[in-house]
Amino acid sequence: MWRTLDESPVWRTVPQTIRTAFEAPLPERGYGLEGALHKLRHDVLPFPRGNVHPRFWGWVNGSGIPAAALADFVAGAVNSTVTSSESSAMYVERQVLAWIKEILGWETCGDGLLTSGCSMGHIIALAAARRAAYGARVRDLGMGPQDRGRVYVSSEAHLSLEKAVELLGIGSANLVRVEVDEDKRIRCDCLRDAIISDREKGMVPICVVGNIGTVNTGAIDDIDGLLSISRNLGVWLHLDAAFGAFGRLISPVQDKLVNLGKADSIALDLHKWFYMPFDVSCILTRDPEILLSTFEVKSGYMSPLPAGPASFPHSFGDRGVEQTRSMRALKVWFALTAYGVEAFRKSITKNYFEASFLARLIKRNPGFELLSRGDLNIVCFRLFDGSMSESEINQLNIRALTVLQLSGKALPSHTWLDGKFAIRVAINNHRTKFYDIEILVRELVEIRTKILSEFQASSGA
Amino acid sequence: MWRTLDESPVWRTVPQTIRTAFEAPLPERGYGLEGALHKLRHDVLPFPRGNVHPRFWGWVNGSGIPAAALADFVAGAVNSTVTSSESSAMYVERQVLAWIKEILGWETCGDGLLTSGCSMGHIIALAAARRAAYGARVRDLGMGPQDRGRVYVSSEAHLSLEKAVELLGIGSANLVRVEVDEDKRIRCDCLRDAIISDREKGMVPICVVGNIGTVNTGAIDDIDGLLSISRNLGVWLHLDAAFGAFGRLISPVQDKLVNLGKADSIALDLHKWFYMPFDVSCILTRDPEILLSTFEVKSGYMSPLPAGPASFPHSFGDRGVEQTRSMRALKVWFALTAYGVEAFRKSITKNYFEASFLARLIKRNPGFELLSRGDLNIVCFRLFDGSMSESEINQLNIRALTVLQLSGKALPSHTWLDGKFAIRVAINNHRTKFYDIEILVRELVEIRTKILSEFQASSGA
Ligand SMILES: Cc1ncc(COP(=O)(O)O)c(C=O)c1O
Ligand SMILES: Cc1ncc(COP(=O)(O)O)c(C=O)c1O
Repeated sequence: MWRTLDESPVWRTVPQTIRTAFEAPLPERGYGLEGALHKLRHDVLPFPRGNVHPRFWGWVNGSGIPAAALADFVAGAVNSTVTSSESSAMYVERQVLAWIKEILGWETCGDGLLTSGCSMGHIIALAAARRAAYGARVRDLGMGPQDRGRVYVSSEAHLSLEKAVELLGIGSANLVRVEVDEDKRIRCDCLRDAIISDREKGMVPICVVGNIGTVNTGAIDDIDGLLSISRNLGVWLHLDAAFGAFGRLISPVQDKLVNLGKADSIALDLHKWFYMPFDVSCILTRDPEILLSTFEVKSGYMSPLPAGPASFPHSFGDRGVEQTRSMRALKVWFALTAYGVEAFRKSITKNYFEASFLARLIKRNPGFELLSRGDLNIVCFRLFDGSMSESEINQLNIRALTVLQLSGKALPSHTWLDGKFAIRVAINNHRTKFYDIEILVRELVEIRTKILSEFQASSGA
Repeated sequence: MWRTLDESPVWRTVPQTIRTAFEAPLPERGYGLEGALHKLRHDVLPFPRGNVHPRFWGWVNGSGIPAAALADFVAGAVNSTVTSSESSAMYVERQVLAWIKEILGWETCGDGLLTSGCSMGHIIALAAARRAAYGARVRDLGMGPQDRGRVYVSSEAHLSLEKAVELLGIGSANLVRVEVDEDKRIRCDCLRDAIISDREKGMVPICVVGNIGTVNTGAIDDIDGLLSISRNLGVWLHLDAAFGAFGRLISPVQDKLVNLGKADSIALDLHKWFYMPFDVSCILTRDPEILLSTFEVKSGYMSPLPAGPASFPHSFGDRGVEQTRSMRALKVWFALTAYGVEAFRKSITKNYFEASFLARLIKRNPGFELLSRGDLNIVCFRLFDGSMSESEINQLNIRALTVLQLSGKALPSHTWLDGKFAIRVAINNHRTKFYDIEILVRELVEIRTKILSEFQASSGA
């Protein structure tokens, strides 16, 4: 599969015959291992989402390292649940957490655990921030009349934060979306004003969330500015570093991330720009006690014994939401043990320069307009034609992107930036080569010419 | 690994030298694939949690089918995220959901998705029930003064429900723990009274949670009684069927689960009594719209296009908490395709009769006391001696269980039942044979004799 990736289409639609095959009822008798493998090869493997392909740059999906997938097999075979019972799996996860802290420059021991994604990490972090803001009674009494809690994000925040405040019963009306500057970074002056004015109205600022890589353009908020607001005003600072955390490994980006390790909490995905297969993500806190005081619950069934497998030297189950927890750490541990951080630094840095390369190619070509380069691995641009209206340009780009995606030659996704439809290329893909970027631009140049001549033909007719 | 399981210890402690190995700092250069495999074999594999062993019956952990672990490798290799983009992974998950509905006799199409565990499933179900109780404003405004929401469980409910109400901002003081009868089933009369009295006080009943298999003893609540309360009083009925759902496949249990498919929602784990490697779980709702109306959030970045990979025929991301979602469905799909439901019915039924067999052996032996047989696969008992006080009997059993666990011969866990320390055997293990149950009893008979003679020696001295 991996060997022929380059020649296969990035993506193709699932044909109707295959869709119908997936409507078969529950099999009473099986097809045997051979039969199941045949179905797997015939119905499943030819129609992937595409993110293992060198020219997949849609949304923010990791490309997936084979050695890490192998570790997932081993994890399934050993099948240790990583809750509290002593086993090597507990030590693997603790070592991986320590390694992530080293990469981030996380300043205290703090606490942390691996989760299924940043969506979960944000929920855990906001629950901890809420516990810190209100004390233990919020666990007993829930959110009440006096609580009027507020969470502050920039207008570029990822939708998972909106989902988190809704889930926690804080309510999305209490998610304050602070303005951004022209580089899509949160305006710290506006943030400070918003917090102060809310406090005057008797509201309770629970948490400020900074972006380390916005999902649209990869902008990094001003960490020092956020830290100073958080400390002066006494509000928890959480960082959404879903993919941006690993900017710590890129020389030209490091300067912006020096004080990353000083926040109250951070959520980051290993399954994005650290190339791990889904799912594995990480949440860290500065306060070593807050996760336990937010989540720990007692039961006879899980009570510790003085010795043996129920002596529970450490409990991940008491530090977050999941009780049963898979051995997500193993793939990270295995890949770092095999390749070292060196290999990741190289790939991540290469992706950064591929984004710069793409931005240069776009700038140089008058048929394109660069909409953003951002701080990390995301480039947004559009096809451009000076004679067209904004809405025609949007139509042109929607059309072009669809044609490109359906061709299977490359797969960027899109977003909307200030009313402009943008083709969005997020390069967190260790298989991408500089040459793939050239292919992308070449394909789009051709598609542009073709669509424009169609437009002319139809308006001429 | 699998071939020699029977002769290896179920569990052993991680030696200090290995613990120390896991304190090594982040490797700058890797050890290569060979080196990493060596470390894996040396440091990780010999010290599992033990639940793949035929004589592991602690807590409720699945035993893990190798073919399903292989499917996890394939899932990692294909690495499709199952959010909304069209790929075979979307159809695999939808087919698995349909198959689970067939097994449960789920009455409507409803809606659903796979999750990481029942902990997550309960959170999703309670969020949906909350949305149904309060309408859309609870998403905007959060829990407020007028909300005073209440969730009803039995006193035997799993701790994940307490965590869920806390997370949602409902507060654990609003988790009403209703009395159970002597078989540990919820008392429907008390439940009805509690709901009516809360309503009179102006509280809002959000949800009743029924147990399909309590974690302590495997008791099944009276589904028909719960359904009638839920319908007459208009309160959402959620079922915690973490492992009990598959009682549907056991002839002597089926009668109690006829109307399982009529609840408003159900959460069940495939990684427990369906033998899948961690993690994979399922949440289903009766209302086909409620998950979307609870969780859907819009963004430019995830907006649909008319064709191609962003045309989004179905969105799992909009139906739950996770955005990035791994291909958890593949292992279930692969195992059912290979072996058919027939093979699962056989193993699950065998486990049920193994529990009955154990209960008979315990009853027959005057040195033991059977504390519960329950309705499913869990047996609780203790070593007994008529001349000892209750507290001495507890000490005897704590000691005996620890000795057994440390011997590596078998691994039950424990719980506390009405002040009595109980040895608890939960058989959701396709590798267990009847003979393994005999080994357990034989070992405990020996341990009992040894400890009692030590007790006599020390009190005689
Ligand atoms: C900036 C940002 N935050 C949060 C998330 C959500 O992370 P996950 O999909 O791992 O839940 C994403 C995913 O794309 C993201 O890009
Ligand atoms: C009855 C019951 N409910 C819920 C759970 C939690 O499920 P999970 O560990 O999959 O989150 C368990 C786990 O043991 C359980 O036994």
